[in-house]
Amino acid sequence: MYIVILAGGSGTRFWPVSRTSRPKQLISITDGPTMLQRTVERVLDLKPKRIMVVTNQLQKEETEHQLSRYRSVAPVDLIAEPVGRNTAPAVGLAAAIIVLHDPEGIMVVLPADHYIRNDEELRATLHKAIHSARNGWLMTLGIVPVSPETGYGYLEADMALRGTGPFPVRRFMEKPDRETALACLEAGNFFWNSGIFVWRADSILAEIEKYMPELALQLDSITLNNVWDLADFTGQITDIYARIASQSIDYGVMEKSDRVQMVPADIGWSDLGSWSALPDICDANEDGTVVAHCAAYISLDSSNCIVSGNGGVVATLGMHDTIVVSTGDAVLVCPRDRAQDVRKVVDRLQKMELSEYL
Amino acid sequence: MYIVILAGGSGTRFWPVSRTSRPKQLISITDGPTMLQRTVERVLDLKPKRIMVVTNQLQKEETEHQLSRYRSVAPVDLIAEPVGRNTAPAVGLAAAIIVLHDPEGIMVVLPADHYIRNDEELRATLHKAIHSARNGWLMTLGIVPVSPETGYGYLEADMALRGTGPFPVRRFMEKPDRETALACLEAGNFFWNSGIFVWRADSILAEIEKYMPELALQLDSITLNNVWDLADFTGQITDIYARIASQSIDYGVMEKSDRVQMVPADIGWSDLGSWSALPDICDANEDGTVVAHCAAYISLDSSNCIVSGNGGVVATLGMHDTIVVSTGDAVLVCPRDRAQDVRKVVDRLQKMELSEYL
Repeated sequence: MYIVILAGGSGTRFWPVSRTSRPKQLISITDGPTMLQRTVERVLDLKPKRIMVVTNQLQKEETEHQLSRYRSVAPVDLIAEPVGRNTAPAVGLAAAIIVLHDPEGIMVVLPADHYIRNDEELRATLHKAIHSARNGWLMTLGIVPVSPETGYGYLEADMALRGTGPFPVRRFMEKPDRETALACLEAGNFFWNSGIFVWRADSILAEIEKYMPELALQLDSITLNNVWDLADFTGQITDIYARIASQSIDYGVMEKSDRVQMVPADIGWSDLGSWSALPDICDANEDGTVVAHCAAYISLDSSNCIVSGNGGVVATLGMHDTIVVSTGDAVLVCPRDRAQDVRKVVDRLQKMELSEYL
Repeated sequence: MYIVILAGGSGTRFWPVSRTSRPKQLISITDGPTMLQRTVERVLDLKPKRIMVVTNQLQKEETEHQLSRYRSVAPVDLIAEPVGRNTAPAVGLAAAIIVLHDPEGIMVVLPADHYIRNDEELRATLHKAIHSARNGWLMTLGIVPVSPETGYGYLEADMALRGTGPFPVRRFMEKPDRETALACLEAGNFFWNSGIFVWRADSILAEIEKYMPELALQLDSITLNNVWDLADFTGQITDIYARIASQSIDYGVMEKSDRVQMVPADIGWSDLGSWSALPDICDANEDGTVVAHCAAYISLDSSNCIVSGNGGVVATLGMHDTIVVSTGDAVLVCPRDRAQDVRKVVDRLQKMELSEYL
């Protein structure tokens, strides 16, 4: 079994802590290890043959640095794409590498920037998915929804046959409006699309060939001899990647294939979409405030804030429902319900060409 | 004429920019020179014989450093009190030093941590005060009030004799309540007590002897030969200062003496009592926000904020009437109308013994 961690994402909603060269997966949003490191740590117990981390050139150095501590425990391979092209090319490339060595090898695909509270349950769910994947199914983990989230995609399971799954997937659904989300929650057979997949390397390549023939040809044109060692790999694929279209494996394969099944996963999952998600994963203090990375947090007449302090002191006086994030060189202050708009701050910095702070 | 700058104050309301070893007078609240440096710069045109800066041991080094740039322009003396004992001992000590060399020398006493917009008018007003001081009067500058401030002390002038002053002072008044402040503003003969004084060194010493005889004796016991050079001065007065009572020159002499006169001063003065005073001295941007020390300030749906950014970026999104101050290692966020309570944050830090941030 091979772990493939998709760690090449970029994002702006955790600015100012996340930056272009240090996006969400490479930062420690709460205290302790980074999101990528937590992702690696939660699968070590599965004893994977290899852990393959797909990143890109810009983040390669920091990713390498963060992974170094695990090399004594498991073989860790770094695949640095010349540019990010969404998940389909990354998944396809990893599958092509695995299939060379181990045609029926199982791939567990994990995003590097999601939060999972219950690691034990994740591993149990993965074991179940691996079992079905051996028979050629494309398995996806469907998160048991706990609220009518409008920020997640959903998948509808065919639960006619009772039991704990796996279940066939009837359809994938884009982020719904509030009403639809409520209906999904009530229906009981809708799950959040986690982006966690399990399949045989040869299964996914066959489906890519079927539904994404151009990508399949492009992957075929890459010379992949002796490629666990990927030192000189990126240069070889730069030209090919320049022509590869940006596509998600969800849209490219999963929504079309009839080989898709899902396993319900009740694992305390969050995609941590913005600073406002911090209370989902951290305990609040007695004032309802969540505090990360502070030598001390001084709260006077304040409540329900979200505070990240770069190892220093943050003081709020008479502030409520407010996000305060400092990185030393940059500070963000906004109401909790405006957290989605932090990307607009980054847009503005881009327009001002303040690349130092991006 | 001698300039005596009282620069030994401590304060907490500009935390986190001001710290114990770097209080308000030693920081640059807006961009550019520090408050102390601005104080020196506004009197250089008066061509003083010497500029004497009274500070204390804790702030001596930083004060020395900030004054070094002026030594080529004017003789600058540093008097470091072993401990701060309010203004009366500082004024008395400076007077005792001056009187040794120049018995009828005129002292202009200036606090180091006040803001004055109109330097030209200050100098004109001081010239007028110096004229009266030569005849032995204790002159004080009364700031023409522009609002019913409850944060300042007032002085009541006897303006029976019309003209532009000087006027006799009837009485000094502690910080009034709102109603009294409104009455003062309406009456027309009440002025804000600026703490800017002009007198002959021998005049103030005579009044100290009359109204503060104990302090006079203590000052007499200090050996003051060749004291412009004050290198070894502090050690000599440590024991004496340990016994000196903490008293203001206002309370100790000005409120009692019948030799006090005032000159109205319309000089754009503010004592800059807290972060909420920043809009009095800085132009606001089109959103009504005042910004200091920022490489860039990103304002999205925000207005009327007060922002100080330690040379980095501050972003506010959906914030109004809010103070945001960052020093890299510490961040303060509070509503504008809570600025007076910043000292409570410092109290808390003291209780937590977080001396690094004090």
